[in-house]
Amino acid sequence: MSNQTASSLSSETIELLRRASTATVTMQLLKRGLRNLAISGLRPLNLGATRIVGPAWTLRYIPGREDLNPPPKPGDPENAQRHTVERAPPGSVVVVSTGGELRSGTFGDILVARMKVRGVAGIVTDGAMRDVPVVSTMDIPVFCAGAAAPPSMNWLHPIDVQVPVGCGGVPVFPGDAVIADADGVVIVPNGIAAEVARDAFEQERIETFVALQVKKGKSTTGLYPPNDETRAAYAKWLAAGEPTD
Amino acid sequence: MSNQTASSLSSETIELLRRASTATVTMQLLKRGLRNLAISGLRPLNLGATRIVGPAWTLRYIPGREDLNPPPKPGDPENAQRHTVERAPPGSVVVVSTGGELRSGTFGDILVARMKVRGVAGIVTDGAMRDVPVVSTMDIPVFCAGAAAPPSMNWLHPIDVQVPVGCGGVPVFPGDAVIADADGVVIVPNGIAAEVARDAFEQERIETFVALQVKKGKSTTGLYPPNDETRAAYAKWLAAGEPTD
Amino acid sequence: MSNQTASSLSSETIELLRRASTATVTMQLLKRGLRNLAISGLRPLNLGATRIVGPAWTLRYIPGREDLNPPPKPGDPENAQRHTVERAPPGSVVVVSTGGELRSGTFGDILVARMKVRGVAGIVTDGAMRDVPVVSTMDIPVFCAGAAAPPSMNWLHPIDVQVPVGCGGVPVFPGDAVIADADGVVIVPNGIAAEVARDAFEQERIETFVALQVKKGKSTTGLYPPNDETRAAYAKWLAAGEPTD
Amino acid sequence: MSNQTASSLSSETIELLRRASTATVTMQLLKRGLRNLAISGLRPLNLGATRIVGPAWTLRYIPGREDLNPPPKPGDPENAQRHTVERAPPGSVVVVSTGGELRSGTFGDILVARMKVRGVAGIVTDGAMRDVPVVSTMDIPVFCAGAAAPPSMNWLHPIDVQVPVGCGGVPVFPGDAVIADADGVVIVPNGIAAEVARDAFEQERIETFVALQVKKGKSTTGLYPPNDETRAAYAKWLAAGEPTD
Amino acid sequence: MSNQTASSLSSETIELLRRASTATVTMQLLKRGLRNLAISGLRPLNLGATRIVGPAWTLRYIPGREDLNPPPKPGDPENAQRHTVERAPPGSVVVVSTGGELRSGTFGDILVARMKVRGVAGIVTDGAMRDVPVVSTMDIPVFCAGAAAPPSMNWLHPIDVQVPVGCGGVPVFPGDAVIADADGVVIVPNGIAAEVARDAFEQERIETFVALQVKKGKSTTGLYPPNDETRAAYAKWLAAGEPTD
Amino acid sequence: MSNQTASSLSSETIELLRRASTATVTMQLLKRGLRNLAISGLRPLNLGATRIVGPAWTLRYIPGREDLNPPPKPGDPENAQRHTVERAPPGSVVVVSTGGELRSGTFGDILVARMKVRGVAGIVTDGAMRDVPVVSTMDIPVFCAGAAAPPSMNWLHPIDVQVPVGCGGVPVFPGDAVIADADGVVIVPNGIAAEVARDAFEQERIETFVALQVKKGKSTTGLYPPNDETRAAYAKWLAAGEPTD
Repeated sequence: MSNQTASSLSSETIELLRRASTATVTMQLLKRGLRNLAISGLRPLNLGATRIVGPAWTLRYIPGREDLNPPPKPGDPENAQRHTVERAPPGSVVVVSTGGELRSGTFGDILVARMKVRGVAGIVTDGAMRDVPVVSTMDIPVFCAGAAAPPSMNWLHPIDVQVPVGCGGVPVFPGDAVIADADGVVIVPNGIAAEVARDAFEQERIETFVALQVKKGKSTTGLYPPNDETRAAYAKWLAAGEPTD
Repeated sequence: MSNQTASSLSSETIELLRRASTATVTMQLLKRGLRNLAISGLRPLNLGATRIVGPAWTLRYIPGREDLNPPPKPGDPENAQRHTVERAPPGSVVVVSTGGELRSGTFGDILVARMKVRGVAGIVTDGAMRDVPVVSTMDIPVFCAGAAAPPSMNWLHPIDVQVPVGCGGVPVFPGDAVIADADGVVIVPNGIAAEVARDAFEQERIETFVALQVKKGKSTTGLYPPNDETRAAYAKWLAAGEPTD
Repeated sequence: MSNQTASSLSSETIELLRRASTATVTMQLLKRGLRNLAISGLRPLNLGATRIVGPAWTLRYIPGREDLNPPPKPGDPENAQRHTVERAPPGSVVVVSTGGELRSGTFGDILVARMKVRGVAGIVTDGAMRDVPVVSTMDIPVFCAGAAAPPSMNWLHPIDVQVPVGCGGVPVFPGDAVIADADGVVIVPNGIAAEVARDAFEQERIETFVALQVKKGKSTTGLYPPNDETRAAYAKWLAAGEPTD
Repeated sequence: MSNQTASSLSSETIELLRRASTATVTMQLLKRGLRNLAISGLRPLNLGATRIVGPAWTLRYIPGREDLNPPPKPGDPENAQRHTVERAPPGSVVVVSTGGELRSGTFGDILVARMKVRGVAGIVTDGAMRDVPVVSTMDIPVFCAGAAAPPSMNWLHPIDVQVPVGCGGVPVFPGDAVIADADGVVIVPNGIAAEVARDAFEQERIETFVALQVKKGKSTTGLYPPNDETRAAYAKWLAAGEPTD
Repeated sequence: MSNQTASSLSSETIELLRRASTATVTMQLLKRGLRNLAISGLRPLNLGATRIVGPAWTLRYIPGREDLNPPPKPGDPENAQRHTVERAPPGSVVVVSTGGELRSGTFGDILVARMKVRGVAGIVTDGAMRDVPVVSTMDIPVFCAGAAAPPSMNWLHPIDVQVPVGCGGVPVFPGDAVIADADGVVIVPNGIAAEVARDAFEQERIETFVALQVKKGKSTTGLYPPNDETRAAYAKWLAAGEPTD
Repeated sequence: MSNQTASSLSSETIELLRRASTATVTMQLLKRGLRNLAISGLRPLNLGATRIVGPAWTLRYIPGREDLNPPPKPGDPENAQRHTVERAPPGSVVVVSTGGELRSGTFGDILVARMKVRGVAGIVTDGAMRDVPVVSTMDIPVFCAGAAAPPSMNWLHPIDVQVPVGCGGVPVFPGDAVIADADGVVIVPNGIAAEVARDAFEQERIETFVALQVKKGKSTTGLYPPNDETRAAYAKWLAAGEPTD
């Protein structure tokens, strides 16, 4: 009954979003009346790998039941978790809905390593991760709500993939743009990702100029948000060649 | 990927469960190693209508998004919420997964009235209900986690029906038996509903006898759980014709 | 720095709001893009006195400090709590911001009795009430987040009145319309109270008609929200003389 | 290492506390610098049986473990829960520490019935109760944090009795006075119970006078807390024979 | 109605507090009967900048409302947030009351940079910060309850400055001493700041001596808290010249 | 009434557990039907000291009361906290039950230093720690739920040692094996510690092999959990000499 169709995100959109912070992106969302697209309370496991940009691949768990979730055996049929690990496309961001379960790890080091090898761009879960001593050293960005030693089947049951889900109180549709940094994870609806990316890039650029003025001691009044005078100075600065960083 | 098939619950199973409390049913579940099937924290809106027994019809919401959830207009296509209201079969129990959203009502009085007219056996949501001044007087059992005036589209988006869901931390598959009373709501997996019903009925009967002995002043030691002597006395009492309550 | 000026609510507005439920009012607020004006988690102490309509008088507490909050003595200067009790105007609704403190009662029976005698229309607190055995029998609507025996000075310090406050996560300005029923408490900004009241009254009237049709067995499709056909039938019904309910 | 010895509470102390509300008792505790003796968040199951006064008998649970807590069998050795049920003295108040576990019932109807028959004065738990459909109709006051169908061994393990415990964030020593009404449950340390009872009784009496004046329309200024003039009027009223209420 | 007047903190008091930990300061507060002045749950953004000492400048937000909080435009009148950014005096600590809102950032990098340039000594909020990737690298201590990408106007409305506020459950009056380190943030009431500073300094000095003895293998009995013998040894150690450390 | 007797953990068991992660250990517990032995929500203070293995020494606090918990004086009798600090045996892990109290520090730097000198293997508390600026640099692993400046007697009262306790929702008996790493803290019941250690060691070894295959690009299907073919390859790899790390 959910009839949205997601376009793929263009490489230009991905590239522009990479140059924008989540703070900037949420201001663009607010300008479009969207106030509920930043997931609260997630943290990156590896402080050296916090940037994620890519389209969402969704995985949905429901709460576990002791008889449904025995320890895994070889020959078990592929479930939604394993389907994700082996099939989420390169470049996609695996977004997991656990209902906030913190007593089981969403994934451990072996499954994360497999996704990394396969080219998954990042992992976002509103639950916990396990094998954090290892995962936190791996070069793949992972955002989660905590650490938990027990395996996923302790209290979670994988149910389906690529359906719309809630993740940390935010709606996520397959194909939505996922963007993350140390402020957390933000979802940009697929249909407006291109325009948000463009406007966010421009906002970043002018705020770089603004931040320079603040460092020089200017008051924020008239500067931020920029009035006509500031915009004129910005245009001049831009024409003179924006610094590369 | 979830390949359970639910049998329908027999009328005998329904009838036996009607005569069992949720407390008794959870003891039967515990005997089968199942400790996570009682939904915590829900309360009945109408204290005169708290008993529910029937097969689960599931409705899943995800968090809302301002652009997806405008106020309803005539001619809107049927969404998962309205599909449930008009199509959940008579005798079924509508079980709603909201992710615990308490800032929007899952249903209001008009939709509940429609489900009541259509023969729905009860409503269970891990979110809030609205129009509680009216719904709490209606003769249909409704269990929820709170009251909230705003309509569902305030912060909820209906997404699909008859998929496995989490409700208040408990896994619910379409066709599972739902049983409720003032202790709350308990889910009995479809595949074991018949045997749980039978054993729960027998447990209720012997506990009726036990309760009578306690009222007469007997110690619970040897009585509860019943030892051989107590079981013999129970058999005699039963043969003599159990009081009609 | 907060330069809103509140008009008084007209008696017509008050009267129309009295005939609307909070559920209806929040639909009107949603139509105006306002999704955050229903206070979650409050309950009425007296189930026979749940309707409140009136302009907000605000009282703000901050957390207490042992040296600032000794037991009261005669001759203590009037603090913001006592100022409210003796001076909130007849017809006003006392809205109290406690930061969600549940270990101290906002008010006890003697202070509530005084406000009742003075004509206060109702009391709303995001904290707890004390002397609930008595207050729950008094004929004044009181909404709170819980009961707590200890006096307010146990962990609260009254600080000022008639400033904008947060109450249960909702902004409340002095003079905003407060409306409550068993769904909880809703705030209507002063500047739109008149139009919301008018539209809510009309919505209530058509929903009365809709509810009648549902009871007769009609499907909600086309009925709710009403399409042209339903609106025509409603107009006819209205012309024929609306039942007094 | 906890070397307090509890005196028994005199019948006079018990009788005086019966005539005081928990609100009054907490004011007396505040006057002695004790701000942390009211248990938050408990509610009475039977609204017609909310008053408790008596000395605490404590029962301590720890979290459960699947292997330690199988379903009960006849012949199981007496554990701390059953010891309490069969041995807590008549007149005592059973105070249970569960660590706030709401997924298992502390006691069900049969065990509560046994305690009632044996003369236990009331039950207070910071966890849940089960068999609420029955227990809520029994003539014994029970305060709890919720209802839960599953038996105690679902997630609780009974460990010992008559040790100091925390109940809902409040320290409770065996022999402390427990007092409850619709405001909740308050603990009075054994060593000051007699003096608190006396002062609370006197406070209740003067507040009865104060409440009468408020109903007649008097301002609370000078009245509450009472200044010399009010105290003189009170003395006169008292001499004239206090109304029986 | 809040008639405290704050003295400015002397440079000696500031200097002594700089040499005391928050742990030591709270022991001094406990000795004065004050148990509620440590804000729980805040963390420093920059682990290399955790020490704050200075007088509180308070900023109060209330919850946001969509119509009150549009994206900012040049020419908007100065609100309480911007007033703080441009006017909180050098050396002051900006203490922000958000009611615990974690879905909006209290401040972002540009406003923090402006406050840093202006000489603000630190920032404390019971809400979230945004632009954490940048702010966490800035040389100004910032304590917050989390990170959130969205701007403050997403769900916050700035209302006033320099009024008494609650911050994380603790009362803060303008001019109170704010002291922070990796244990969190502690408030010292203005009127006792000088004496607390003096006693805390002395306590730090003797605990330095105690810690040395513990490292040498001495038992804590008689040492901590120090008995007469320990105090004599300390006096000797002190006379011999305390290590500068 | 708790009649378990704990064997001491053999040095072989300790050694094997040191080579296992908590993730691996919880899989072994799950295989034995034990799903509730990982403590949620604790974090290590010193990221360079996160591994703990050793038998539990338990310390139980109850909530504090102002009159019971004055600031400490020399000559105070030894309480349960100080008993622990001076007597918990070398190699033991101090496990503290606080009921989740985050407003008082369980221990500060001087007491931790004493335990370190005495050879305690680690500290686990479901409450907060104080003197975190110092403790986080000490070479002893400490897991806690947060930081808090105030001393333990602010809101905690030490009551007894070496009794079974709940810690963070998990049952802990004296002598149970405690194992911790960056995933958190896991309890292994004393009676199964030896077999769990053996099986966990073997699981770690085969997962090392599995992880190598994943890094080489193999699919997890058939590999993890290992089927017969994988097991054969593993046996060969093992025979060829397992890498030392």
